[in-house]
Amino acid sequence: MEDRWREGDAGILKRPGSPPLLVRIARGVQSVGEEGAIDLSGEIDQPVGRSITWSGTSYLLFRPSLGDLLASVRRGAQIVTAKDAVHLLYLAGVGPGATVAEAGAGSGALTVAIAFSVGPQGHVTSFDRRKDFLAAARANVERAGLSDRVTFRERDVATEGIDLTGLTSVVLDLAEPWNVLTSAREALAPGGFVGTYTPTYNQLERTVRALRSLGFGEVRALEVLERGLHVGEGGTRPEFEMLGHTGFLASGRKGS
Amino acid sequence: MEDRWREGDAGILKRPGSPPLLVRIARGVQSVGEEGAIDLSGEIDQPVGRSITWSGTSYLLFRPSLGDLLASVRRGAQIVTAKDAVHLLYLAGVGPGATVAEAGAGSGALTVAIAFSVGPQGHVTSFDRRKDFLAAARANVERAGLSDRVTFRERDVATEGIDLTGLTSVVLDLAEPWNVLTSAREALAPGGFVGTYTPTYNQLERTVRALRSLGFGEVRALEVLERGLHVGEGGTRPEFEMLGHTGFLASGRKGS
Amino acid sequence: MEDRWREGDAGILKRPGSPPLLVRIARGVQSVGEEGAIDLSGEIDQPVGRSITWSGTSYLLFRPSLGDLLASVRRGAQIVTAKDAVHLLYLAGVGPGATVAEAGAGSGALTVAIAFSVGPQGHVTSFDRRKDFLAAARANVERAGLSDRVTFRERDVATEGIDLTGLTSVVLDLAEPWNVLTSAREALAPGGFVGTYTPTYNQLERTVRALRSLGFGEVRALEVLERGLHVGEGGTRPEFEMLGHTGFLASGRKGS
Amino acid sequence: MEDRWREGDAGILKRPGSPPLLVRIARGVQSVGEEGAIDLSGEIDQPVGRSITWSGTSYLLFRPSLGDLLASVRRGAQIVTAKDAVHLLYLAGVGPGATVAEAGAGSGALTVAIAFSVGPQGHVTSFDRRKDFLAAARANVERAGLSDRVTFRERDVATEGIDLTGLTSVVLDLAEPWNVLTSAREALAPGGFVGTYTPTYNQLERTVRALRSLGFGEVRALEVLERGLHVGEGGTRPEFEMLGHTGFLASGRKGS
Repeated sequence: MEDRWREGDAGILKRPGSPPLLVRIARGVQSVGEEGAIDLSGEIDQPVGRSITWSGTSYLLFRPSLGDLLASVRRGAQIVTAKDAVHLLYLAGVGPGATVAEAGAGSGALTVAIAFSVGPQGHVTSFDRRKDFLAAARANVERAGLSDRVTFRERDVATEGIDLTGLTSVVLDLAEPWNVLTSAREALAPGGFVGTYTPTYNQLERTVRALRSLGFGEVRALEVLERGLHVGEGGTRPEFEMLGHTGFLASGRKGS
Repeated sequence: MEDRWREGDAGILKRPGSPPLLVRIARGVQSVGEEGAIDLSGEIDQPVGRSITWSGTSYLLFRPSLGDLLASVRRGAQIVTAKDAVHLLYLAGVGPGATVAEAGAGSGALTVAIAFSVGPQGHVTSFDRRKDFLAAARANVERAGLSDRVTFRERDVATEGIDLTGLTSVVLDLAEPWNVLTSAREALAPGGFVGTYTPTYNQLERTVRALRSLGFGEVRALEVLERGLHVGEGGTRPEFEMLGHTGFLASGRKGS
Repeated sequence: MEDRWREGDAGILKRPGSPPLLVRIARGVQSVGEEGAIDLSGEIDQPVGRSITWSGTSYLLFRPSLGDLLASVRRGAQIVTAKDAVHLLYLAGVGPGATVAEAGAGSGALTVAIAFSVGPQGHVTSFDRRKDFLAAARANVERAGLSDRVTFRERDVATEGIDLTGLTSVVLDLAEPWNVLTSAREALAPGGFVGTYTPTYNQLERTVRALRSLGFGEVRALEVLERGLHVGEGGTRPEFEMLGHTGFLASGRKGS
Repeated sequence: MEDRWREGDAGILKRPGSPPLLVRIARGVQSVGEEGAIDLSGEIDQPVGRSITWSGTSYLLFRPSLGDLLASVRRGAQIVTAKDAVHLLYLAGVGPGATVAEAGAGSGALTVAIAFSVGPQGHVTSFDRRKDFLAAARANVERAGLSDRVTFRERDVATEGIDLTGLTSVVLDLAEPWNVLTSAREALAPGGFVGTYTPTYNQLERTVRALRSLGFGEVRALEVLERGLHVGEGGTRPEFEMLGHTGFLASGRKGS
């Protein structure tokens, strides 16, 4: 079955040697990066992966990868790295068809990763108590073409709880995730996972102790380090530059 | 929309403090781990997440996470770790709806991870030149309830190539991935990725040089390290045990 | 100036392919490992590095490296690894001629490393509140031929303090090093360093906060990871086995 | 025995909150950092560790640690980090009293570390084929007050060999250390070690293979990673900044 563009899809416009440009398959003229404007109306219902001529140059137009989407997130603050996002989603049991609650929305980078991974049959509810974060996250999710899978809600889950049930996963990128764990447990379906991301060992320690005392099973705590490799003329070696730390991940399972 | 079991689904049978047991929602009696036998006919069309009484003990029956599925893979040889699997799938652009070719099938652990991640709309074609590996991989994919998304084929892609086109991703877990890169490029759709997993720096170096010389873009090479954290009575520290190495990952993109 | 054995020196007896055997250049018969007995009286005043015939086999007899000495320590408990010992000595400013206080003595592994590094002009005072640890440490230091540089003292420095002054370095391998830092500062000469080794984040945090509040300068906190490399037939890769964690190091300087 | 300054010693001038300043205990006025000039003639034969008034401010004057000396090295090129220097010296069996050959001299950072560690009874011969490197290294060793332990020689050890014998250690910081290993083996005393430092996997692999084929024993290959820890208001975590790679270390032992 041939893959064709639908109106509202996100696409990547790319020519060799240039960075990928995130676009929308939409009617009318849109601005693209800092490079100009384009009208992709004609691509609606056309096959994905065609060559496009724009400003006299040939571009390919294809579906974005998760990496493309994360690279396109406009960030207010620090956003979660891809290595942490994919591992956190793994720990939290997020996959195609999952129903997920996330708090906080932050700049929406993690929201984009979850929305990508749950696929068209899944759904994400993203909570934040701050209107400005919700607006930023919503804009980033829209640019990623994933709005139909995400509900944004202004709510402080630490005090008001998560008023959902039967969830596959609860993903917490909050300073004090332990305040949300009781509520997360109630919101999860049996076998569901909560996954947390916190920068300090103090937060991690408190989170893990809370997971255990609340009866979560399969409690895990870890960090993921990514080390780049440089293949050059003189040989191969690890990259000199490396992120020494991003955050610690923890997870626990309901009814387990 | 309530989540209900369909015949053929994989499920997890779990009671607190015991390891998860992988079962099939199927008609008739099946053996479960080394613990006995069970008939789950009655669960077909029932809601997911119910409590089951088996041998006088109460169990929960819920959908497996990717972690459950990887833990249930029966292995002939070393299998890829979860940290590498999820990061390799990220690099290779695998997500819901993707069409993926994989070689070799090995014991099927990576096949299971890909099949899980592409969801019901995606598809995996898994190649191996060895009949015994294909049989083992097929059995593991069947146990994971993911057979309808996977085609197994006996074929040496190093010499015979990948006779598919328009793929989202090509994932190579082979000793000499460079032999397959020309064929992988032809099989990929524009914007598609090849991702490789190899244990030695020598293999990584040769793979990266081949990716570049064949015109792949966005070439990346890295390794992922996972460091467990121990939260104990006396405080928190990294775990003493750690895998010092598993493999190096590389990726490149077609038309980029 | 030719290097000659003096009575009481430690030596290494070695033949290719066998592990190094720690011996004493001493009068009379001594037992060597589990391999038998030897009389090295004849080596006193002879040049270092000669070939020796023992039980019909040719051995070399040479001076031990620090690695030989650490490998020969008989351990009651976990001992500090070489990577941590050499880095801790660096942070604590230990070098030839240094005068060092150490607490606790433990099994004496760190004592041996310090005594080796301060050379014949330096001195180590090693405190422990437990007689059994002092006895074990003394035996290990004697076997290393370094007794003339070490004074062992039964004393609980956490409650009784370090009754020395003008020290180059204070090295603390204790569960609660913060209890000794005030006393360590008084014992140090201007410009002297205290260095600590502790397993958990919690201990490290408390140590660093105490160093700062007590006015130590140049406060550092870090960990050292050693990753082995395997050069085999099939290529080169990091070793699969690795210590995921040993301990955290911290240091501070007096009058700085 | 009180520690007193001797003419020619290196000292550290320090006040709280300012970086350490490397000075010479010498007759006449010397420039200090970019901060001015000082005459320390009066300190000769005085006790180490006294308080000095300079430009109306009180300073302490004490002996430099190895860390002080490495921090004071004026560098033409990249210099070896402290973590690698101390571990390489450990692997190469360098300690008080050792006689060591080093090649190349480079900027002299490693020379300083070796000269510090061998103490007043040891000696270092540092080879380089380039006059400019030798001049830079000599200047750095002089500033460290360690000139009396170091001989600099213009010589290409790869082609001309190391014309010394009975050495404790040979330390190689060269692009092609394998060219010097035969010569290093001849120069070493029985039980002596060669230690190498190289940036790439390819160099490491070739070095290890050469060590083995030349009959060196106890061959080791590893890398050392240092991860800083941040103790802040909000808690404790690894530092975000980290050197992802510096170099690989290898070592082998003669007659072993």
